[in-house]
Amino acid sequence: MNRKIAYSGIARLSLYYRLLASLEKTGEEIVSSENLGRKTGCTAAQVRRDLASFGSFGRPGSGYDVKGLKETISKILGKDRGWKVALVGVGNLGSALLSYDGFRPQGFHIVGAFDNDKELFGKRCGDIKIQDIRNLDRSVAYSQNIKIGIITVPAPSAQEVANKLVSCGLKAILNFAPAKLSVPKEVELQNVDLSQELDKLSYLLRSKGE
Amino acid sequence: MNRKIAYSGIARLSLYYRLLASLEKTGEEIVSSENLGRKTGCTAAQVRRDLASFGSFGRPGSGYDVKGLKETISKILGKDRGWKVALVGVGNLGSALLSYDGFRPQGFHIVGAFDNDKELFGKRCGDIKIQDIRNLDRSVAYSQNIKIGIITVPAPSAQEVANKLVSCGLKAILNFAPAKLSVPKEVELQNVDLSQELDKLSYLLRSKGE
Repeated sequence: MNRKIAYSGIARLSLYYRLLASLEKTGEEIVSSENLGRKTGCTAAQVRRDLASFGSFGRPGSGYDVKGLKETISKILGKDRGWKVALVGVGNLGSALLSYDGFRPQGFHIVGAFDNDKELFGKRCGDIKIQDIRNLDRSVAYSQNIKIGIITVPAPSAQEVANKLVSCGLKAILNFAPAKLSVPKEVELQNVDLSQELDKLSYLLRSKGE
Repeated sequence: MNRKIAYSGIARLSLYYRLLASLEKTGEEIVSSENLGRKTGCTAAQVRRDLASFGSFGRPGSGYDVKGLKETISKILGKDRGWKVALVGVGNLGSALLSYDGFRPQGFHIVGAFDNDKELFGKRCGDIKIQDIRNLDRSVAYSQNIKIGIITVPAPSAQEVANKLVSCGLKAILNFAPAKLSVPKEVELQNVDLSQELDKLSYLLRSKGE
């Protein structure tokens, strides 16, 4: 499969999933492709194409079954697996993410938080007790079934942490550190750089004379 | 200027800036293009090209002046302006971002937090008192010099909030809601979707049989 096509398709499924979840909460049972599209910024035709390629969820003439479609997309995206996640780096951003409980309903459970600052060891952040990064090894990751790592350390330490996560057998990394990381090709890596997004806005405002 | 080229250039300047800031903190005075490149995932030639196009910061044969280069990049990116930011939606993610004080040293000051849940009005989150969204209007935004809005409301309310921010005269929006927003073309919009990044990892892991 072409990775690039897959990526934009995954991104749209991810949007549909969350819209369906919020519709389910408000008691909606049926949704049209027009409505799904309008609220996710896609055309109705795009929605129908995406969903047709993954099987048939629609009821002709009425729309899609909200609950059924949500569950099917959850399976396609692997969200029904309930991924276990380790977070490394409990600074400002790390503790913000630990306090943010929006990942759990999405199928991502942060089960361990690690740092190298001994002042933090044993403290709690949200539900999680912060541990010495040296406690994280292959056997811990294996026994807790941790597959995904979140990196929220400063840039200069990020590669070292990535190496550690790879050596522990983790298969995917979400990196918030402003550093370009090298990982083996069998490890999936996504980068999120919040300051960079703000810097883009700042540059654009400044260049317009704001 | 070609927006696409500018974007990748801005992204790299943003990386250089933060690396320079961390080098300055540890007392480094000079940095080579090799070192700047290695730690930001660029080639030394790319670093020299980027910096040459914005003027001459280098000392031939020795390297770049850390403090001087950092300040110049800050000005290019408009970070020296000290942008005032309003955040709308003090749910999980919103309060996590309010508690995260990593934006301030980057030149972005969240000066107002707004929600429509009256249970939250008057409560504090970090330094900020949460206000009724109806308190945010053009005159408030103008008097506080708020130019940038952060949207952290649920997807179904995001467009309405974006319309409000635009009507208040804000010029740039960082949107965390999983919704595709329409804004007038003079308003800059960046989207960050954390769950989508995790969904991509989840899909890739699942499709590899993890």
